[in-house]
Amino acid sequence: MNDPEKYAPVGVFDSGVGGLTVVREIMNLLPDEQVVYFGDTARVPYGSKSGETVTKFSRQDVKFLLGMHVKAVVAACNTASAVALDEIEKEISVPIIGVVRPGARAAAEATRKKKVGVIATEATIHSEIYTKYIQGIDSDTKVIGKACPLFVPLVEEGLLNDPVTDEIARRYLGELKGTGIDTLILGCTHYPLLKDTIARTMGEDVTLVNPAYETARSLKKLLTEKGLLNSSDTIAKHRFFVSDSVDKFLSFASAILPYEITSAERINIEEY
Amino acid sequence: MNDPEKYAPVGVFDSGVGGLTVVREIMNLLPDEQVVYFGDTARVPYGSKSGETVTKFSRQDVKFLLGMHVKAVVAACNTASAVALDEIEKEISVPIIGVVRPGARAAAEATRKKKVGVIATEATIHSEIYTKYIQGIDSDTKVIGKACPLFVPLVEEGLLNDPVTDEIARRYLGELKGTGIDTLILGCTHYPLLKDTIARTMGEDVTLVNPAYETARSLKKLLTEKGLLNSSDTIAKHRFFVSDSVDKFLSFASAILPYEITSAERINIEEY
Repeated sequence: MNDPEKYAPVGVFDSGVGGLTVVREIMNLLPDEQVVYFGDTARVPYGSKSGETVTKFSRQDVKFLLGMHVKAVVAACNTASAVALDEIEKEISVPIIGVVRPGARAAAEATRKKKVGVIATEATIHSEIYTKYIQGIDSDTKVIGKACPLFVPLVEEGLLNDPVTDEIARRYLGELKGTGIDTLILGCTHYPLLKDTIARTMGEDVTLVNPAYETARSLKKLLTEKGLLNSSDTIAKHRFFVSDSVDKFLSFASAILPYEITSAERINIEEY
Repeated sequence: MNDPEKYAPVGVFDSGVGGLTVVREIMNLLPDEQVVYFGDTARVPYGSKSGETVTKFSRQDVKFLLGMHVKAVVAACNTASAVALDEIEKEISVPIIGVVRPGARAAAEATRKKKVGVIATEATIHSEIYTKYIQGIDSDTKVIGKACPLFVPLVEEGLLNDPVTDEIARRYLGELKGTGIDTLILGCTHYPLLKDTIARTMGEDVTLVNPAYETARSLKKLLTEKGLLNSSDTIAKHRFFVSDSVDKFLSFASAILPYEITSAERINIEEY
């Protein structure tokens, strides 16, 4: 082994289970990488809380992952990426990427009318970070945000294809439709699970951007550039950590990931 | 002052803002008592989390209140009352009451057909504590529980009287209606805000029990029996503490309480 850092795992954290949609994309695109995941299931959600609290929690999440000797950190939570990433990036020596910047880049490239919509949690919309990043790429692009607080509870209640979810989607997305956007960022990890409902409501002329997929691509680029891609023949086992009950996590994780997750460990995140 | 303990405040805690519905009843029934409130807004909700996590959080909440030299503690959160109270009661010397026992007693007295329904969070329903308390009073009474996870997000989105909330209420309450209950406990602090929808859905033959009101009555009884009622002419100012942003709390608090709340303090609950 010339460079043992290559063989270190990639750390991924989220406010809960939604970040597993990002892990799924990483597993698809980078099958040789080992993932260490932390889901803050005891303090979920982050999206309705203040920037100060989300930053404090995210800092603890990152500190835990650094203790696991990860070679890079992925903030798989849109809210954490939106409000905490810039600050935490300055404090650590390991590279860290979030889901917002890759999603913003993909949307800026996809829009033809230079009008992009963003749906996300209250905290993410309030941060206006998607606007900042998209206009940093093309200052002529207009960005219209809309918080959709009921989407996460509807997903967690399993109402993925349901008249109630259709009605809520019509209300949330109605005003976005009227603005003439041609691209819509699904700015919360749960929202890709409502892709069918959102696509039906917005119509086929609107391109949906899934930051989870874009983030896996960014991670691959980052690891390649830094010479950190794992080239080992043996794949280390992925590891999953949560701050609340392991049992509840396992069933959700197994539904999202391409294989059944049989073990996870509970940690006390408040000690970090 | 013969007994300075009388002049100590009453401590009330909740997972967030919902417990203010209990504070409102305490202010109505016991206008001479000073209230110290703590809302764990950084870690809300409790109702979807494990008993172990809820107990740990509740223990920290109580420890903070004890540091404020309260003469009694009220767990204004159904979930905390359901899963953590019995354990915490053994650990502290100050009397503590929850919202579950008073609600259970009122329901046991109200039912004529000996069939009581309970709607609450997943954690409260899973604990089966309402069943335990009601059958402890009358072992012949049947208790049927139903978790309603979407009710809290619907209330927080302001959809108090809305066709979507009506539809969700029909689904949650449909199976309860078919069981022939004549009494229904609103076993989560947010649910009294949906009283109209719930009453309309259940029909006029079903009596709704609001544990918040029953809890204020229990507190009055407790303070009277222990000689702890405040008989002072001067009313000390109520104090409000939260673990997340103060601003967001103030507007919600002012909407629920009979007067405008202009100040609250933020604390780091993880230090307790």
